[in-house]
Amino acid sequence: MKSDINIKKLKEFAGQSVTLNGWVYNKRSGGKVRFIILRDGTGLLQCVLFKGNVSEDVFERFNLLNQESSVQVTGNVKVEERAPGGVELDVTDFSIIGNSENYPITPKEHGIEFLIDHRHLWIRSKRQMAILRIRHRIVKAIRDFFDERDFTLFDPPIITPNACEGTSTLFETEYFDLGKAYLTQSGQLYAEAGALALGKVYTFGPTFRAEKSKTRRHLTEFWMVEPEMAFYDLNDDMDLAEEFLEYIVQTVLKDMQTELAALERDVTKLQKVRRPFPRISYTDAVEILRKKGVDFEWGNDFGAADETLISEDYDQPVLVHRYPSEVKAFYMKRDPDNPKVALAVDVLAPEGYGEIIGGSQREDDYDLLLKRIKEHDLPVEFFDWYLDLRKYGSVPHAGFGLGLERTVSWICGLEHLREAIPFPRMIYRNTP
Amino acid sequence: MKSDINIKKLKEFAGQSVTLNGWVYNKRSGGKVRFIILRDGTGLLQCVLFKGNVSEDVFERFNLLNQESSVQVTGNVKVEERAPGGVELDVTDFSIIGNSENYPITPKEHGIEFLIDHRHLWIRSKRQMAILRIRHRIVKAIRDFFDERDFTLFDPPIITPNACEGTSTLFETEYFDLGKAYLTQSGQLYAEAGALALGKVYTFGPTFRAEKSKTRRHLTEFWMVEPEMAFYDLNDDMDLAEEFLEYIVQTVLKDMQTELAALERDVTKLQKVRRPFPRISYTDAVEILRKKGVDFEWGNDFGAADETLISEDYDQPVLVHRYPSEVKAFYMKRDPDNPKVALAVDVLAPEGYGEIIGGSQREDDYDLLLKRIKEHDLPVEFFDWYLDLRKYGSVPHAGFGLGLERTVSWICGLEHLREAIPFPRMIYRNTP
Repeated sequence: MKSDINIKKLKEFAGQSVTLNGWVYNKRSGGKVRFIILRDGTGLLQCVLFKGNVSEDVFERFNLLNQESSVQVTGNVKVEERAPGGVELDVTDFSIIGNSENYPITPKEHGIEFLIDHRHLWIRSKRQMAILRIRHRIVKAIRDFFDERDFTLFDPPIITPNACEGTSTLFETEYFDLGKAYLTQSGQLYAEAGALALGKVYTFGPTFRAEKSKTRRHLTEFWMVEPEMAFYDLNDDMDLAEEFLEYIVQTVLKDMQTELAALERDVTKLQKVRRPFPRISYTDAVEILRKKGVDFEWGNDFGAADETLISEDYDQPVLVHRYPSEVKAFYMKRDPDNPKVALAVDVLAPEGYGEIIGGSQREDDYDLLLKRIKEHDLPVEFFDWYLDLRKYGSVPHAGFGLGLERTVSWICGLEHLREAIPFPRMIYRNTP
Repeated sequence: MKSDINIKKLKEFAGQSVTLNGWVYNKRSGGKVRFIILRDGTGLLQCVLFKGNVSEDVFERFNLLNQESSVQVTGNVKVEERAPGGVELDVTDFSIIGNSENYPITPKEHGIEFLIDHRHLWIRSKRQMAILRIRHRIVKAIRDFFDERDFTLFDPPIITPNACEGTSTLFETEYFDLGKAYLTQSGQLYAEAGALALGKVYTFGPTFRAEKSKTRRHLTEFWMVEPEMAFYDLNDDMDLAEEFLEYIVQTVLKDMQTELAALERDVTKLQKVRRPFPRISYTDAVEILRKKGVDFEWGNDFGAADETLISEDYDQPVLVHRYPSEVKAFYMKRDPDNPKVALAVDVLAPEGYGEIIGGSQREDDYDLLLKRIKEHDLPVEFFDWYLDLRKYGSVPHAGFGLGLERTVSWICGLEHLREAIPFPRMIYRNTP
């Protein structure tokens, strides 16, 4: 019963008779006409039954339809400029494939816990479908961006024996006779090995944080893309991050107009995401906070509220660079001009969406890196291989990580990360 | 020091002076000429130092170079048809960025354990770089294939509360106050929810099996792509699998000639991977085994040796369909014409590479599915959401899973899966 015709491409079939498969999104009646709003995953379509055009049987069958009944519909494609996709279907016949009694998600309001409990059905709603299609387009934009620039995809291991940034927020698992292993928090250390082999690489996979944060900006399982480039310094890294974000946003704006409209996203905000982005040092960012009346001490890390205050005066993402070394990870290179700061950059999204990118130039000196590992009380034996990268043909290199769900949330204008992934995992939920 | 010129595109710069960054793959001397084989991750390049063309200093500096020293080299791009990429570099200057004393992987033979211990460096060898670049091209072909056919990417959760095919081979983790959770073995059940929302979806991510198999065809962590399509039956599913495999193989053949040559892959074998592929029923496959003298009982599952015997007479992948229901998973639909068999298909790769695809039409009847779940002693409460998909607008649907590393192994002609992924995970190894 497979059909190669779908709602998204229906306009190409104007004037023709076609058969479509899908589900009843909604229905309504009026006098001698009945309407089925059909969804097939690619879009919504108004299907019209005129009493005179279909048999009595077919017209009566309409009464058996419920929300989410699955159907096969045959009809003529009619151009109708007022319809969302520019066409509607003048039905000649339809059959019911599967029934749907008392579908739990009705057009009325439901609580968020109820909706997440029914996530497997909630994703059929117009808004959730739009978000998931935009997520897909963002993923494709990310991959195309790197593929077109001679990067090699480099899938890092998920099960790792060591922790990139401490062990307190790791999911553990028993690994046969080898003892405890952990779910990765970042593929970066492996990506560095990849960059020194393949020049420019990117990882793109799920990462995990067993953090007890209950905020709308945290998931325990989220996807991260991490490019890593040999022979790049912090400036090259920032240039790439800037070009990358512009590319993603402008691609979605161009290709996903229907979905952005379904979300009622204010696209004028996204249109402003054009290079160059503002670049300010951490020290200047602290000044901004102080001018806004925040009693902020140099050397502390920014909280979500601070990030909003720093970025609120800009239409574009803001690159904040050169953070105090103390608040940043051991592998970040210190600024030779001022060793109190690390050659790090965070990118803060506009509209209060906070950090979406974190990156840095990496320490490429063997002795300095070893010293940092010891200062951070990390087990040196786990980092032998990582130190090797500084022993055999070390080169300046840099990279960054972009959180996929935060990016989806920002571009879609979502309140909470949980809508940005098919089945969200949070500290109080790992179902369905 | 970033350079946008790399070895792969060097031919475009013939006749020009360029600066390249990279590592010394090898070097040799002869009279008044010195050779550096440079690698930069995109390819290998012969760089030539003529005594008269460079300063005395630069000529002497050659002696300081070791295998894997990192360097920046400037010179004129000279067309040289005998060279691998069609060009070589007539060096005018070079500098050493990072030294490399006693690089552990020398051109002599090393044992496999030594090599995997040094996987972070082993990936710099010509053969491993070729495999990883082909892996990338395969991943891109997979995504392009589905993206061009209106599929939506649908990332399933990695941490799951339930087991798709039993709990004996699962990695466990403590999930906050919610008790034990498991690493996914397959995203399929979630993909089914996705297909009923979005029509055609695919998952593509890491999956895990805590299997105590020490064979060359098992990894504990491997990547799997799983398309799932609403309104597809088993035949549609087989058509798609066939088109998909042909597309992947022919794309790699076209785009990765240099890498396949580096692996000394017999490409005539791959050229034969053209549709239509042979399709035989399980029952016919049993007959083939018996004719070859195997005492095989109808109802058993095939082992690796059986798969090789079944597929060895064909140049193309072989689709074996309609397996005994007893050896297949609970969610597979029974054949209405013969309920003893399931509407399942396995695809066996040529050249003895065994199963690379497993798929089926799914049970879409609520009552039958519930019965199977109970028969398999699976906890019904974990499958409530999955059963909902048969309650609200159920439709015929089908899908399959392709193992990425097995596909890479087959296309590259590898002996063992461990070379098909950057950092392999096996039961006796989770490092580096």
